[in-house]
Amino acid sequence: MAKPLDGLKVIDLTSAMSGPFCTMILADYGADVIKVEPPAGDQARTWGPLDEATGESEYFAIFNRDKKSVSINLKDPAGKAMLFELLQDADLLVENFKPGVTKKLGIDYEAVRAHNPSILYASASGFGQTGPLSHRPCYDIVAQAMSGILDLTGYPDQDPVKVGPCIIDHTTGLYLVIGILMALHHRDVTGEGQYIDVAMLDSAFSITENMPTYVARGHGVPQRRGCADPSITPFDCYRCKDGFLVIGIGNDALWETFCKTAGLEELLEDPRFTTNWDRTVNYTPDLKNAIAAWCAQHTKAEIEHLMDEAGIPCSPVMNMKEAMENPQIAARDMMVPTEHPLLGRVDVPGCVVKLSKTPGSVDAPAPLLGQNNRDVLGLSPEEEQALIEQGVLGK
Amino acid sequence: MAKPLDGLKVIDLTSAMSGPFCTMILADYGADVIKVEPPAGDQARTWGPLDEATGESEYFAIFNRDKKSVSINLKDPAGKAMLFELLQDADLLVENFKPGVTKKLGIDYEAVRAHNPSILYASASGFGQTGPLSHRPCYDIVAQAMSGILDLTGYPDQDPVKVGPCIIDHTTGLYLVIGILMALHHRDVTGEGQYIDVAMLDSAFSITENMPTYVARGHGVPQRRGCADPSITPFDCYRCKDGFLVIGIGNDALWETFCKTAGLEELLEDPRFTTNWDRTVNYTPDLKNAIAAWCAQHTKAEIEHLMDEAGIPCSPVMNMKEAMENPQIAARDMMVPTEHPLLGRVDVPGCVVKLSKTPGSVDAPAPLLGQNNRDVLGLSPEEEQALIEQGVLGK
Repeated sequence: MAKPLDGLKVIDLTSAMSGPFCTMILADYGADVIKVEPPAGDQARTWGPLDEATGESEYFAIFNRDKKSVSINLKDPAGKAMLFELLQDADLLVENFKPGVTKKLGIDYEAVRAHNPSILYASASGFGQTGPLSHRPCYDIVAQAMSGILDLTGYPDQDPVKVGPCIIDHTTGLYLVIGILMALHHRDVTGEGQYIDVAMLDSAFSITENMPTYVARGHGVPQRRGCADPSITPFDCYRCKDGFLVIGIGNDALWETFCKTAGLEELLEDPRFTTNWDRTVNYTPDLKNAIAAWCAQHTKAEIEHLMDEAGIPCSPVMNMKEAMENPQIAARDMMVPTEHPLLGRVDVPGCVVKLSKTPGSVDAPAPLLGQNNRDVLGLSPEEEQALIEQGVLGK
Repeated sequence: MAKPLDGLKVIDLTSAMSGPFCTMILADYGADVIKVEPPAGDQARTWGPLDEATGESEYFAIFNRDKKSVSINLKDPAGKAMLFELLQDADLLVENFKPGVTKKLGIDYEAVRAHNPSILYASASGFGQTGPLSHRPCYDIVAQAMSGILDLTGYPDQDPVKVGPCIIDHTTGLYLVIGILMALHHRDVTGEGQYIDVAMLDSAFSITENMPTYVARGHGVPQRRGCADPSITPFDCYRCKDGFLVIGIGNDALWETFCKTAGLEELLEDPRFTTNWDRTVNYTPDLKNAIAAWCAQHTKAEIEHLMDEAGIPCSPVMNMKEAMENPQIAARDMMVPTEHPLLGRVDVPGCVVKLSKTPGSVDAPAPLLGQNNRDVLGLSPEEEQALIEQGVLGK
């Protein structure tokens, strides 16, 4: 079956997480992604859990499926020449070095477009290529802290807490895909290439909902509120007999349905809880306690079943095992197997975007370091060996 | 200046958050987005904070800038005919009704492509168009709970907590943009339209880093760990004299630099902390306490300055006001003013993706309900008035 990015040649200089997540999506949807690694390999190849027998990283295996790997020393003139040879007919270069590094290596946008004027050149970085902080290094936790997300997450009477998984690395990768695809459409229409600059901080800041505008409009500094919503009630997490569960009741009709379903009709008579705004203002302690007391008498499954029948948004708080084993995840092909030559079976998250005519798919496991040196660079085994000995290619 | 999506005609049936966030990005980058609202308006027009004088929503104003609004009753045959008239030469329809609603309204993909075979048709929903849960309603908090993110966020000895802002609505919107742009590229090349299906649950599940694979490979059920990282140490949040701050030390060279910068050289001699993995295994209580004690003696600004000089990733935990007032945010045009006819000045988050030749920009405030009925639908004031009285258009 055709894929939407069939024929797109991508030279991928990214490492770690945000960049590889971007090029993973491009590869799943048909792009020919050639991952150019330093001779020591992408640092994510050392990230645990590592396979005991082979030292191979399953973390790396997730985000680099469907790609090829060549291991080139870009600090060596012969290695750099090989890169430019690959770039000659490439559609896209993607990198996530700290700003300034590509210039030092002589592979920045100016240098590359001199050889290939219509190329797209996409950079992800912590703070972007411009501005007073552009020189700083960044990790996901830093972008969470600087964007306000960390301060807004947690309970009001407890310390702030970061979001568990590295959601900003993911978000940055998604924006990078969007920038690339917008530039690709412009090139489809005009033939013109361009430069794409995406920052982790900007990406994090952009997913804080209405909070920046809330502050700018003079409403004060928003505070973290646990699982409760600032404008919709009840919209919270409750403890059941056997764990936690969330319920979201977004309007007055659902409120009536909920009270009748839960046998809490007396709440419908209470003038403090008539409208959504009444409920929001008067949520604690009585309304919250009434719902909490009801939930405490039931199991998660009992309440989920009742809410499903009633059409009320609800879910148990699933741990990662429960989340992964959800039949809906299987039905949507959101966990798919790969067969890795060293790790054996590695199940990885599938393709989110479902396209009716040109769907994505996971077809190949992540490459070993330099696995494609010979076929991509057109080398005989002897030539490859000589270049390894000269320090131009990795082993 | 040209924008990458200039000339793209989008019929936008979305409401609330995830869909409008998607079409906001399309509009910022040049698409002609015609928002088709029911006569009562998008529900987000009622989401607070509301302007006291006019009742206008600033929440709505953020995510609907750069769009046009027409208010059409799609349950009325004349209204539906108007929609199909608009769809005749449209490139894209976007909707986020619950699965099944477009079919009931007679505006599902099959019905629309019969009139416009090359159209792209994009749907966002809670659980997708397929699978055992597809009929269920969803909110951001439900997707956080069902994906495992909520359970993984919080402190180990405390209740789990949801991420403050509605990050899954945002992530879903980003995937929807990606699906649309991939399908657009395929159409650029082949002329062929198609259907795009994106689910909130899939989107949430896809940003849980390596956790699903971790479980699938038999490593057990991952637990929440506060701000600490499972594989990199020190990588945590610490209390300073005047608030919290995060530090991320990703390798042994940075560790040495950090200890020397902080005057904690004695830690370098301690064999429990030699490698990253040693530090991770032996983090609590001694290493964590040593760093916490040092941070407690300094202000956020003092430590941030030291870390910046030393090249160590670091940030104060900024509240939303501090985050918004960060000079880096200004330098990147990440807060930009709009002038709304009723609300006055509304500053909104800017465009994340920086494109050198075809940048996005925020050019117009959000439309009033039905503001563009006459120009978009080609009506005289008298015709518009008659259609309002017939219940075909909103007031």
